[in-house]
Amino acid sequence: MLNKIKKQFNKKTNFEQWPGIIKGYKKWLPINKNTPIITLQEGATPLIELESINQIIGRNVKVYAKYDGLNPTGSFKDRGMTMAISKAKEEGCKAVICASTGNTSASAAAYAKKGGMKSFVLIPDGYVAQGKLAQALVYGAEVLAIKGNFDTALEIVQRLANEFPITLVNSVNPYRLEGQKTAAFEIIDSLGEAPDYLCIPMGNAGNISAYWMGFNEYLTEGISKKLPNMVGVQATGSAPLVFGKIIKHPETIATAIRIGNPVNKEKANIVKKESKGTFLDVTDEEIIKAYQLLGKQEGIFCEPASAASVAGLLKIKEKISNNATIVCVLTGNGLKDPDCAIDNNEAIFKQGIEPNFEEIAKSMGF
Amino acid sequence: MLNKIKKQFNKKTNFEQWPGIIKGYKKWLPINKNTPIITLQEGATPLIELESINQIIGRNVKVYAKYDGLNPTGSFKDRGMTMAISKAKEEGCKAVICASTGNTSASAAAYAKKGGMKSFVLIPDGYVAQGKLAQALVYGAEVLAIKGNFDTALEIVQRLANEFPITLVNSVNPYRLEGQKTAAFEIIDSLGEAPDYLCIPMGNAGNISAYWMGFNEYLTEGISKKLPNMVGVQATGSAPLVFGKIIKHPETIATAIRIGNPVNKEKANIVKKESKGTFLDVTDEEIIKAYQLLGKQEGIFCEPASAASVAGLLKIKEKISNNATIVCVLTGNGLKDPDCAIDNNEAIFKQGIEPNFEEIAKSMGF
Repeated sequence: MLNKIKKQFNKKTNFEQWPGIIKGYKKWLPINKNTPIITLQEGATPLIELESINQIIGRNVKVYAKYDGLNPTGSFKDRGMTMAISKAKEEGCKAVICASTGNTSASAAAYAKKGGMKSFVLIPDGYVAQGKLAQALVYGAEVLAIKGNFDTALEIVQRLANEFPITLVNSVNPYRLEGQKTAAFEIIDSLGEAPDYLCIPMGNAGNISAYWMGFNEYLTEGISKKLPNMVGVQATGSAPLVFGKIIKHPETIATAIRIGNPVNKEKANIVKKESKGTFLDVTDEEIIKAYQLLGKQEGIFCEPASAASVAGLLKIKEKISNNATIVCVLTGNGLKDPDCAIDNNEAIFKQGIEPNFEEIAKSMGF
Repeated sequence: MLNKIKKQFNKKTNFEQWPGIIKGYKKWLPINKNTPIITLQEGATPLIELESINQIIGRNVKVYAKYDGLNPTGSFKDRGMTMAISKAKEEGCKAVICASTGNTSASAAAYAKKGGMKSFVLIPDGYVAQGKLAQALVYGAEVLAIKGNFDTALEIVQRLANEFPITLVNSVNPYRLEGQKTAAFEIIDSLGEAPDYLCIPMGNAGNISAYWMGFNEYLTEGISKKLPNMVGVQATGSAPLVFGKIIKHPETIATAIRIGNPVNKEKANIVKKESKGTFLDVTDEEIIKAYQLLGKQEGIFCEPASAASVAGLLKIKEKISNNATIVCVLTGNGLKDPDCAIDNNEAIFKQGIEPNFEEIAKSMGF
């Protein structure tokens, strides 16, 4: 009997297609039998050990990247958007709106179209990375680039959603954080336990709250036995949560976290307190250094805002306990911001080379 | 006893981290206990039903996209590169080289760095999409942009690899196709059977041969019971396999398949014959139409070359049998070529808008 059952279980195929976070984590999410599931098979992203960072820190510390840039639209936003759009569809919504530094708009547009809805996005004119603009356009959003920053755009879309029949899908939408918490589940499912530290970039500060919710839910169910210290990282020129005040004119190369008045600031401060966590800022130079290190040492191309999590870890590396397990969240794909990569690399790039064998061999050092 | 065992199996966590294609499909790949596994957790990509294409074709036909743009460097090349680089490492290699229209160079550079090796890439000057160039630079490759097309670059790197201690990782490297065949395994593992048709873009024509190898291996092992018709699609301006002759000056918006003299042409012709398949060409206009349809209807952003598979399917849709299952391979991420997206969309994009609530509401039609 035992052998027969064992055989049956071994007969399963090698690979099981991940169905997206809603079907994958059904019992943990506020859905019901009437919720239509609008998915692009988001989630199930890589957790990659960063050997070069292990070596920098030493003391048997193990550092992993949760590479959420491999979600369908290239950022962690897809985890929340599958929830927000599925619930909007359930409620009969025909159009959605968001303010965005680029990742939310890409995700909202893609999921809205998959769900047969219209999407409007307000972005800060001139401050959205090229790839993200390309995405919103390809996914057929109606894009309004306003003279103003993200915070202004968010105020306007909140009012539009209040006064007109259109659903707001920014992270004030509660379903967004519910979806985003699944990244914490995946980390525990992969490591077998929560990490000791989670380093995460903070812009509108929804994601740190979502992760905290996820870690707490697994703890409550007894799946994990501890909670991580939450390390929230902001760019120095855009660090309202670090400095404890609204930044009127936020500036940073990390456009995805260029937000001066985070809508989720109270939630984030609670996370900091409850987790005995740390908020810190890193300069654009420190961000670019981490960004380059990830590319050149680890073969991982993330967007500048994502590299803030690694830059933050490197800044506090002396304070990390021996033997700790750390996860750095890489929120978005580097391909979203090709200009940043072309302007900030140390590679050798020779153009206009004649296709001559001897010359090429020579220039390669042979 | 039965209940005890069942309980044990149900206790597993929700999500199982995919370990990359080498560990995931170990027994199917030419590795041994001494092979170091250099992985970025490639593979396990989404298989997404394309409801809009189902409706266009009708007759109970089911069409899926194998969205291989969600691999770590954004293309199917990663499946082959994890194999090629792991084997190169096993053999003590210190540097790799490739010619590339952009995807191979990105993948080679990333995996080489992960494996602690140096990488050189030859690309056609001015004909590599911006995102792909950004990748090669971020991953720290030495990039030589030559005056000449892919075919010229490939001739040169083949000679370099022959004469100097450097490993060639183009698809003449046999390990590349071994890794790429795992996409066929995943499709069968997901659908429970091989599809009736596989539509795939052809550039250097390695991938169609790799899929065919994968489908045949699962058939031989009795995991599947049929083989698909292989539909290979080229761009009209770059269709040596369709027209049966070398194209000296290939031209197409789909730069990833802008190859006039495919190194794997003989293998591809055998696949066509054995599978009773079809090779056809699609114009750049047809490619862009399919590209836009995927974005606006399905929320999927692929690169132009990838859309060729869907364009090809739409071109021969009358010939598809009733009730057929079809998989279209989307080889690369649309973010690799943001310019193409910005130049080819029908979205509404208004810039320089004053942040005035009433005006914005009015411009949205409220």
